[in-house]
Amino acid sequence: MAVADTNKDKKQDDKKSLSGAGLRGQSAGTTSLCTVGQSGTGLTYRGYDITDLANHAEFEEVAHLLLKGKLPTQAELDGYKQVLKSARGLPPSLCQVLEAIPADAHPMDVMRTGCSMLGNLDQELDFSEQDEKTDTLLAMLPAIICYWYRYSHDGVRIDTANSSQDSIGGYFLEMLTGKAPSELHKQVMHCSLVLYAEHEFNASTFTARVCASTLSDLHSCITAAIGSLRGPLHGGANEAAMAMIEQWQTADEAEAGIMEMLANKDKIMGFGHAIYRESDPRNALIKAWSEKLSADVGDTHLYAVSERVEQVMKREKGLFCNADFFHASAYHFMGIPTKLFTPIFVMSRVTGWAAHVYEQRANNRIIRPSADYEGPEHQDWLPIEGRS
Amino acid sequence: MAVADTNKDKKQDDKKSLSGAGLRGQSAGTTSLCTVGQSGTGLTYRGYDITDLANHAEFEEVAHLLLKGKLPTQAELDGYKQVLKSARGLPPSLCQVLEAIPADAHPMDVMRTGCSMLGNLDQELDFSEQDEKTDTLLAMLPAIICYWYRYSHDGVRIDTANSSQDSIGGYFLEMLTGKAPSELHKQVMHCSLVLYAEHEFNASTFTARVCASTLSDLHSCITAAIGSLRGPLHGGANEAAMAMIEQWQTADEAEAGIMEMLANKDKIMGFGHAIYRESDPRNALIKAWSEKLSADVGDTHLYAVSERVEQVMKREKGLFCNADFFHASAYHFMGIPTKLFTPIFVMSRVTGWAAHVYEQRANNRIIRPSADYEGPEHQDWLPIEGRS
Repeated sequence: MAVADTNKDKKQDDKKSLSGAGLRGQSAGTTSLCTVGQSGTGLTYRGYDITDLANHAEFEEVAHLLLKGKLPTQAELDGYKQVLKSARGLPPSLCQVLEAIPADAHPMDVMRTGCSMLGNLDQELDFSEQDEKTDTLLAMLPAIICYWYRYSHDGVRIDTANSSQDSIGGYFLEMLTGKAPSELHKQVMHCSLVLYAEHEFNASTFTARVCASTLSDLHSCITAAIGSLRGPLHGGANEAAMAMIEQWQTADEAEAGIMEMLANKDKIMGFGHAIYRESDPRNALIKAWSEKLSADVGDTHLYAVSERVEQVMKREKGLFCNADFFHASAYHFMGIPTKLFTPIFVMSRVTGWAAHVYEQRANNRIIRPSADYEGPEHQDWLPIEGRS
Repeated sequence: MAVADTNKDKKQDDKKSLSGAGLRGQSAGTTSLCTVGQSGTGLTYRGYDITDLANHAEFEEVAHLLLKGKLPTQAELDGYKQVLKSARGLPPSLCQVLEAIPADAHPMDVMRTGCSMLGNLDQELDFSEQDEKTDTLLAMLPAIICYWYRYSHDGVRIDTANSSQDSIGGYFLEMLTGKAPSELHKQVMHCSLVLYAEHEFNASTFTARVCASTLSDLHSCITAAIGSLRGPLHGGANEAAMAMIEQWQTADEAEAGIMEMLANKDKIMGFGHAIYRESDPRNALIKAWSEKLSADVGDTHLYAVSERVEQVMKREKGLFCNADFFHASAYHFMGIPTKLFTPIFVMSRVTGWAAHVYEQRANNRIIRPSADYEGPEHQDWLPIEGRS
């Protein structure tokens, strides 16, 4: 997600010498999956408004919409959830790999390695297998992060195949905590996963498409995308927002803190967006859940702190919260460790990534841009004795 | 590398609806590392002609040129080789991961997973560590593939830290075969690794740059690039060329075979290029070594088959060999299993990938293009009961 550092962005806009910088505004292909900032509340998946999807759909319905092209009937949804549920159990050699990863590893490195390892064990030999391979990834990604987390942090080997939960969000929470989540928590996870599922040609999705354009396998594309989402200019803004808001005990403290950060020109994560100009349509949706969770958990200050930060950023900089900001408090209220916030993003966005891989494959040309050369002119060969 | 399937490429050029297809000819940034098809024999690294580099430089000199900005003095080269040599030994948990990968895995999946796992064990915490992390990767990539290959295929746990070889190419051959390679083989490896080290904004390098543009870590960028190189439209052409030429026992058989393939419009790998129009400057260089190796090994037909294929492709289609075609026979004459050809490409290209990551970081804007939307217009929400 985007960083609130709009000053930096403007600075780079002014740098005219940076030719083709970031390909901003240049079309790199076509898509039927998503529009960002074009119509309705500003975000649609296959024509459906994000607000409708977040308010009414389970995440698995949205995954079906993105990956299979349509919202499922009840029978299709039931069947799809059954397929996903039956594919969760991690193969023993994948567990062996996860056990070899230390507790101080970056959780996104764990996701990337788990996905890559799965590619060795469940290799996509032909593109006709793409649906099946995506289903398995979608089913196993929550298991991968929870298996590593519980083993490395608690010394527990969880049974990833055995869960009463029929939703991906509920399953994640159960694997993480060892107990069945509340209805409220399951609803929040549906909303959160729906909001993060797809966002057009963002950097991680574009990474997946460049990789797909060489006709590489699905696991390579998703592994590559995870690596891009790991970057602090992309995923991870909700983790940074959490680290910021949890330092403050009252809304007034938060206001003073933000004013000081603005004076120091510090980066403030969770605000503004590369494409949205007025607001991020995902913010109101997750914010409402954060408020409900705050009441549910008896929170005395974190939601108030978050709201005040939102007000001050609007008042002082005209900046709005993006999808990440109220995700921080919402996840926190559900007891999710901050370092697992971005891996949840992966569990969701894998649907968008895979759908883009399918699109790229269906109408492919290898993505191979040009570069402006600004290096040295011809150099005569210089034998090693003559160098300095 | 490119595919000889120019018909397909032309077909795609004609498809005007494929907007922004492959970003062909569009600048996606600047580089000081490389020019392709612009001057001299058509390929330069930091201004040095590929022919000079391939004829005179050890691979480690070229790695130094790309990664540290200049050709090294003798003292610098000696020091650099010592650093690389001392970083070869794989950590035990990386060995544990490689042992968990089955023998029938795709060797590029092994490289991708080994690189990703290393990111958990040798995490780049700050960009100031980039040189050191690259050196370790450069040192360990040959060890990663050989450790897995020997363990999974021969049941042998090789000692990756212990080798008399001071070059990356020599080390790879020693780890693979268990014995010190000949001077000839070491020279060929230098040439081969030099030729594959860098090639501007090809798809795998561009993948690495997109990933780097999120300010992700080095291992994510290189892991992503390996995933792209795995694609049959990019890496792997030398493996496909080998599979083709080894079916023929004489030059005449080869000629008949190629004529039949052309008549069937089959793909013929190792010919033509997305950017070069007249010839690939790397071909003559590796071809000369293939010829020497053919004599050295007492080959009776494979080099002759390769030469005839080159002649027929020129005569019938006006197509030239690219870097991959004579690499096939050269590697084969050195006893390298065909499935390890593309991993050698990784051992070399990691230098170019990392150098591009450094460039992207030094003048970064997140790479986030746009897409042309061609999906459905606004869809009203449809409750699940009403769907079909």
